[in-house]
Amino acid sequence: MFDFFTGDHFSYIAAILTTIAFIPQAVQTIITRDTDAISLEMYICFCTGVFFWLCYGVHIGSWAMMIANSFTLVLSLIILSYKIFNERKKA
Amino acid sequence: MFDFFTGDHFSYIAAILTTIAFIPQAVQTIITRDTDAISLEMYICFCTGVFFWLCYGVHIGSWAMMIANSFTLVLSLIILSYKIFNERKKA
Repeated sequence: MFDFFTGDHFSYIAAILTTIAFIPQAVQTIITRDTDAISLEMYICFCTGVFFWLCYGVHIGSWAMMIANSFTLVLSLIILSYKIFNERKKA
Repeated sequence: MFDFFTGDHFSYIAAILTTIAFIPQAVQTIITRDTDAISLEMYICFCTGVFFWLCYGVHIGSWAMMIANSFTLVLSLIILSYKIFNERKKA
């Protein structure tokens, strides 16, 4: 799967990094419960986008895309949930 | 380019949404200058990942990937810069 001779490794490293990036954000949000600096619109837009990437993964039958996007979707939905909860508490 | 009959539209909608998602976050960060709830590790990881997606776009000669990832990289670098600036001010 990993092919360092074709340049495809760029996409594997990229996919891994942009997927795991949401782990520290989700952990920080769960621990601190602080979402003030986080944009609600960003996470609504992002979660919807990742959902469509997941649909595309299912459509083309790519397990890598399905797994990576399911993982990102769960993490970004956790962050979005905290944000919505905090916004409703404020209102 | 847009082909609603093959299911490729999933990827176009997904790419547009996950790219523009960073606009409201960058705008909010620039206006409020608040980055407390934002994870430094997330943006370091994410910017690096997007940079590799950009490299992959260059590698496969995809203008769509180059444009979308350059755009996302600029926005996420803006957010990362504010975060680093605020962290250094605190220290």
